[in-house]
Amino acid sequence: MARSSKGQDGGQYSYEGLDRVLHEKARLGILTALVTQPKGVYFTDLKSQCALTDGNLSRHLQVLHEAGIVEIWKGYEGKKPQTLIRMTDEGRREFVQYLAELQRVIEDARERPQRASTKRFDAPPGFMPA
Amino acid sequence: MARSSKGQDGGQYSYEGLDRVLHEKARLGILTALVTQPKGVYFTDLKSQCALTDGNLSRHLQVLHEAGIVEIWKGYEGKKPQTLIRMTDEGRREFVQYLAELQRVIEDARERPQRASTKRFDAPPGFMPA
Repeated sequence: MARSSKGQDGGQYSYEGLDRVLHEKARLGILTALVTQPKGVYFTDLKSQCALTDGNLSRHLQVLHEAGIVEIWKGYEGKKPQTLIRMTDEGRREFVQYLAELQRVIEDARERPQRASTKRFDAPPGFMPA
Repeated sequence: MARSSKGQDGGQYSYEGLDRVLHEKARLGILTALVTQPKGVYFTDLKSQCALTDGNLSRHLQVLHEAGIVEIWKGYEGKKPQTLIRMTDEGRREFVQYLAELQRVIEDARERPQRASTKRFDAPPGFMPA
């Protein structure tokens, strides 16, 4: 119990720390790719690492940029236009906190490890499938 | 690298195993509450544990039910109508796999632990903020 996070609404399993901006599946991949690269990652590399289309990656980066999680830099490598994406320091702090909450979810789920029961489930007397 | 999951599209950070049915924040809480309770949890208890409204919990359970992740049983405790929610064996298997993928995300993010840098970030020469 003590390990479980409690949101303002007090639910043991409400996990208020799982900010939806960070938790969305594709953005979670993007942030995981960025967190280990303090100098940033080029758009083209991020796209292939996350298996996203140009449009999808752009859309998710827009969300992260507006939330102050990433910085976007435009420039040239030789004559080739390049976009560099970098996690902000604030974004890094938020993501580290998010990861801690995610770890709590995993620990809560393992609190009483249960294998798929080999016994047939018996519902309480009189209960019928909905 | 070897620890990273690879989706069919091959992205190192695409995390195809993060099924959106399970990954959605509120449903992740619901499933974490259910996974440790093989005999199921009453709707009213689940609602307070997850800090959800009746409508929201019903809607998420509908999604999980249609995906075969949970069973829903209706009955009475004394004269009081009760709804019992239980994770199916198949749902448990899927959730355990999902949790393993989630653990990989955390490990990937920690692969090269980075603290917020105290140095100012220097973009490559000629790069400007977008």
